[in-house]
Amino acid sequence: MDSISMMGNNAGASFLPPQPTVAILGSGDFSKCLAIRLLRCGFHVVVGSRHPKLAAQSFPHVVDVTHHEDAVGKANVVFLAIRREHYSILWDLKHLLEGKILVDVSNNRRVNQYPESNAEYLASLLPDSIVVKGFNVISAWAMQQSCPKDASTQVFICSDLVEARQQIMELARQLNFQPVDMGTLSSSRDIENMPLQLFPGWKGPVLAAVALSIFFFAYSFVRDIIHPYVKYKQSDFYKIPIEMVNRTLPTVAITLLALVYLAGQLAAAHQLYYGTKYRHFPHWLEGWLQSRKQMGLLSFFLAAVHVLYSLCLPMRKSERYLLLNTAYQQVHANVENAWNEEEVWRVEMYVSFGIMSLGLLSLLAITSIPSVHSTLNWREFSFIQSTLGYIALLIATLHGLLFGWKRAFEEEAYRFYLPPSFMVSLALPVFFLKMLTQLCKILSLFWSCAYIK
Amino acid sequence: MDSISMMGNNAGASFLPPQPTVAILGSGDFSKCLAIRLLRCGFHVVVGSRHPKLAAQSFPHVVDVTHHEDAVGKANVVFLAIRREHYSILWDLKHLLEGKILVDVSNNRRVNQYPESNAEYLASLLPDSIVVKGFNVISAWAMQQSCPKDASTQVFICSDLVEARQQIMELARQLNFQPVDMGTLSSSRDIENMPLQLFPGWKGPVLAAVALSIFFFAYSFVRDIIHPYVKYKQSDFYKIPIEMVNRTLPTVAITLLALVYLAGQLAAAHQLYYGTKYRHFPHWLEGWLQSRKQMGLLSFFLAAVHVLYSLCLPMRKSERYLLLNTAYQQVHANVENAWNEEEVWRVEMYVSFGIMSLGLLSLLAITSIPSVHSTLNWREFSFIQSTLGYIALLIATLHGLLFGWKRAFEEEAYRFYLPPSFMVSLALPVFFLKMLTQLCKILSLFWSCAYIK
Amino acid sequence: MDSISMMGNNAGASFLPPQPTVAILGSGDFSKCLAIRLLRCGFHVVVGSRHPKLAAQSFPHVVDVTHHEDAVGKANVVFLAIRREHYSILWDLKHLLEGKILVDVSNNRRVNQYPESNAEYLASLLPDSIVVKGFNVISAWAMQQSCPKDASTQVFICSDLVEARQQIMELARQLNFQPVDMGTLSSSRDIENMPLQLFPGWKGPVLAAVALSIFFFAYSFVRDIIHPYVKYKQSDFYKIPIEMVNRTLPTVAITLLALVYLAGQLAAAHQLYYGTKYRHFPHWLEGWLQSRKQMGLLSFFLAAVHVLYSLCLPMRKSERYLLLNTAYQQVHANVENAWNEEEVWRVEMYVSFGIMSLGLLSLLAITSIPSVHSTLNWREFSFIQSTLGYIALLIATLHGLLFGWKRAFEEEAYRFYLPPSFMVSLALPVFFLKMLTQLCKILSLFWSCAYIK
Repeated sequence: MDSISMMGNNAGASFLPPQPTVAILGSGDFSKCLAIRLLRCGFHVVVGSRHPKLAAQSFPHVVDVTHHEDAVGKANVVFLAIRREHYSILWDLKHLLEGKILVDVSNNRRVNQYPESNAEYLASLLPDSIVVKGFNVISAWAMQQSCPKDASTQVFICSDLVEARQQIMELARQLNFQPVDMGTLSSSRDIENMPLQLFPGWKGPVLAAVALSIFFFAYSFVRDIIHPYVKYKQSDFYKIPIEMVNRTLPTVAITLLALVYLAGQLAAAHQLYYGTKYRHFPHWLEGWLQSRKQMGLLSFFLAAVHVLYSLCLPMRKSERYLLLNTAYQQVHANVENAWNEEEVWRVEMYVSFGIMSLGLLSLLAITSIPSVHSTLNWREFSFIQSTLGYIALLIATLHGLLFGWKRAFEEEAYRFYLPPSFMVSLALPVFFLKMLTQLCKILSLFWSCAYIK
Repeated sequence: MDSISMMGNNAGASFLPPQPTVAILGSGDFSKCLAIRLLRCGFHVVVGSRHPKLAAQSFPHVVDVTHHEDAVGKANVVFLAIRREHYSILWDLKHLLEGKILVDVSNNRRVNQYPESNAEYLASLLPDSIVVKGFNVISAWAMQQSCPKDASTQVFICSDLVEARQQIMELARQLNFQPVDMGTLSSSRDIENMPLQLFPGWKGPVLAAVALSIFFFAYSFVRDIIHPYVKYKQSDFYKIPIEMVNRTLPTVAITLLALVYLAGQLAAAHQLYYGTKYRHFPHWLEGWLQSRKQMGLLSFFLAAVHVLYSLCLPMRKSERYLLLNTAYQQVHANVENAWNEEEVWRVEMYVSFGIMSLGLLSLLAITSIPSVHSTLNWREFSFIQSTLGYIALLIATLHGLLFGWKRAFEEEAYRFYLPPSFMVSLALPVFFLKMLTQLCKILSLFWSCAYIK
Repeated sequence: MDSISMMGNNAGASFLPPQPTVAILGSGDFSKCLAIRLLRCGFHVVVGSRHPKLAAQSFPHVVDVTHHEDAVGKANVVFLAIRREHYSILWDLKHLLEGKILVDVSNNRRVNQYPESNAEYLASLLPDSIVVKGFNVISAWAMQQSCPKDASTQVFICSDLVEARQQIMELARQLNFQPVDMGTLSSSRDIENMPLQLFPGWKGPVLAAVALSIFFFAYSFVRDIIHPYVKYKQSDFYKIPIEMVNRTLPTVAITLLALVYLAGQLAAAHQLYYGTKYRHFPHWLEGWLQSRKQMGLLSFFLAAVHVLYSLCLPMRKSERYLLLNTAYQQVHANVENAWNEEEVWRVEMYVSFGIMSLGLLSLLAITSIPSVHSTLNWREFSFIQSTLGYIALLIATLHGLLFGWKRAFEEEAYRFYLPPSFMVSLALPVFFLKMLTQLCKILSLFWSCAYIK
């Protein structure tokens, strides 16, 4: 009889269900905090411990702290708050645990520490019990908090028996957590690895960004610091902390942004080549597609830092000394006004395009905040991430091209036969934008054909 | 018997409820993904198809793929994963569908494509079935995901029969979605339009911002580019990409911000005029009131871009040439120091007020992020959005007034008899702030009178 | 019989539960909006009023508006939508309310307005009823909204009887709210204070920031404005709006950041001293530890505003006049190039470190957004907040030290015997970073000893 029907029918009678009992084996920190949470949400809690008298001191009085056998006998749902190393003690309880739901909340110290997951190991030890994996992503501290304001409340739950999984998910809901159904017990390895992972989705994109940064920094260093030093004995090493870094940041940012959209193009080309939407992508492309969000955010972050560096340029002493030197020379050469209309327009234009491109990228970044994202429907999200993203890439490319102006065609720009770094970095976006226009034509043709068929 | 009581009572016995059965008519992409999700959450799934043998290949083995009649007979809840164009096939199943819950998950290609919504059309076809609209905002892709980390999980549900609505909402919860109750079936048109809409709430504010931008840009263009060209043959066209844009942005931003708070003032005046809180506002005012958040965010965005443009000013070549020219002239005129205390103070003050105003606006913007918003109570939110917002508008107005300084009273500021654009844009905020102080006095008087009565 | 089993079993039969009835006493705004919400979610609503005929006009027709006694008799769950001042009318209903659940939704006008909370007062008036506190954080307006997109949907619920609390939490879920279990009725004071509080967690950190700002501003004012005025009659008062503020902001920001991590160090030292993890911290340290997030965010905000101020420096007229003056003097002294390699390196380095430090702090700030936070596991969050935070503090300290360069050792830097303000502000971080390295060594030694034992 559930709570809705109760309200309407048995007026006046005792209308409340008996409190269900949950057992916890183990009496550590996690056990304590779980017991407190269960109590607060209206459960009877019985704790099984090797030393019940000692352990009872650290639990609230209403908790029934007793021997393992006794605890297991009193409940159908048993939480195992003990380490994998002590699972052997369950051997003696085997017959008592038959047909009961065992919730494995254990964690390991390292990713893939054991050949099989703790939960699967437990299931092999106790084949007649129903093993459910879950609650391991919640720390003892978060378990104790009543108000879910600060800590994440998602718990990932899996089990081979669907009904047991549903029951523990309902229990999670009653404890004010958000259960996430992870399917069969084979997911338990992933669930156990979850709290041990350090930004798994960011590894590839960050490595790509670091590799690109090293390459472009070294490239600029050779061209802009070593070359003048070797050729003219001119020491420009002071440029390393700001100018060199500021030359590296935008090149890496635009390359990452081009890579984001290149992945989508390759996927489209793959579909085109095989003539179907339903063929799996190769492994490398799948990984690339799934790290587009991270690459886009990194690109935005680097672009934003590039803006900060650029804005700091006029603040530097070196800039000041050079300006004063120019003023001195202009006075001595008796040039009243050195105005160069072309130079003026070049700078006004590339600065302006740079700001627009950052403005668009910031819209993309904001819609990546999970709670903003979830207010958008699919069409809105795709408009921002796809349409605005392409426009941002286009404008960023124009920003780079205008920055370069005619220098790509001047001989002196090729120091050590190397073109300027902005040219190298623009090769990919320009190639990509060209490829994009081609692909769009072919693809629209292809799908329209497919529809006609 | 629900899951709580089960845990406590029938220890040892088989304690799991029989798996409920759900039918799906249609065997497309959405049907497949819905079936997978239902299976994972512990339901039996039976799929009705015109060609069961062919369709069965693309479903998991445990799914019972059969004829339409057979599928409908096995379940009380039937999902219709077929297009509106094929609803006619339901005619033959009419008697089988009597008294059953039909969940219409269909979407259209365009907003308001048909005279009545798909769900209402279905209800008119099958008057003896109970039609529930829902799940159409979830894409087939999102349906297949087990972990709701990335995709929005809200599903909007409506039905004329409250109990059926509640039941499908409970089903949505069991599938790890967040159901949102949308009332009777007359909401189904709105629900069907949802995935087709592109930022409906932003349309008005963006149009307002674009119109204001065009006006202020043209205004400045005539005053600051055309006027010097006509009068002194001075070509300042290089100012278009940065200076003109940077003159337009703050004027639009402050006008939008004033419009945000003006709407609230007009609403208060409306209440005052009719002497009651409970009279509906006119349609235009209602729309204006509801787009205040969007106008405020647009205002912040434009203000932030204005700051970026302003910070880029000293970086430009034109600035550099003009500075060097001034240095040359100062040397030749033998002026050691051109220090002008008034000019110094004016700039220090308006820059300082500008930064403060942006700082306050950024607080308003941050509290508009949904997950930040939801950690605030009503009083905190109103303090940020109302009190801090007013202060931000006041400081932004001072920023503009200090920027203008005494220029409003100088004759040469009126080119073509036009006042500078900042003056035009400040008219509204200044008028508004004046009106505000008046209204506050009257309103506090009025409500205190109302309380005394 | 719950909704799952219903779907599977009684095919064809009338499968919907009877609508439960909920009573509301009182007929004000909140009562109206609550009734509408209850209706929409499938409940029968009966409203108790002193003037049923009058009140009925403002409720939907399906609501049964009647006398108090009648309303109470028809339901087991009774919402009290009346003010505490009118609780006396419940005296006559005492026998009718026996054993029923009374939901107190009342709010007060001031924090701690009465000696005991409204709900506890109600429980003392009606000892035979079951009092549940809840729904008071929801405004009448939010109650009426069907879609929880905009308003916070958390409701805090407490009661001495666990089963009643669970039942009302389930009711809250059915009304599309997120119930948060707050334990026994003694929490009702906190719950009643919630909607009245204005950023309670921010009070301490904001006061600390204000006090530090006043101190450092006054300090700089005496050193950099008063001293030159007294000694050389040099009037630098124009520096107040920007330069003085910009000298105060970074000093306050770095002090706050050092205080964030100092709290953790003191906690570790406390544990070390008492040799246990389980001893409570003193009250002041507990408060300090709990306001670290707010102090960190304030530090980031001030650092970001400091960057804005710094970037505006080259834009000022004063800067321009001083530069032109220098140009004049350089031309007259016939110095072609005043290049000073040491000065150049100092500025390039400290600007570069400043940008890095802001970049890292911005990552910390982003992960403080609740919905971003909840996508991180504990290890990731601790990596960002602890490891990256320490690095940010280290780099910010280097930024300050490089800004100072050798000035700490020059006699003229000590005006009025006062060291420059950046030195004062760096004392804490430098001391802290030194203490940190010591403590890490001791602590790692200590815990390794504890493990061996």
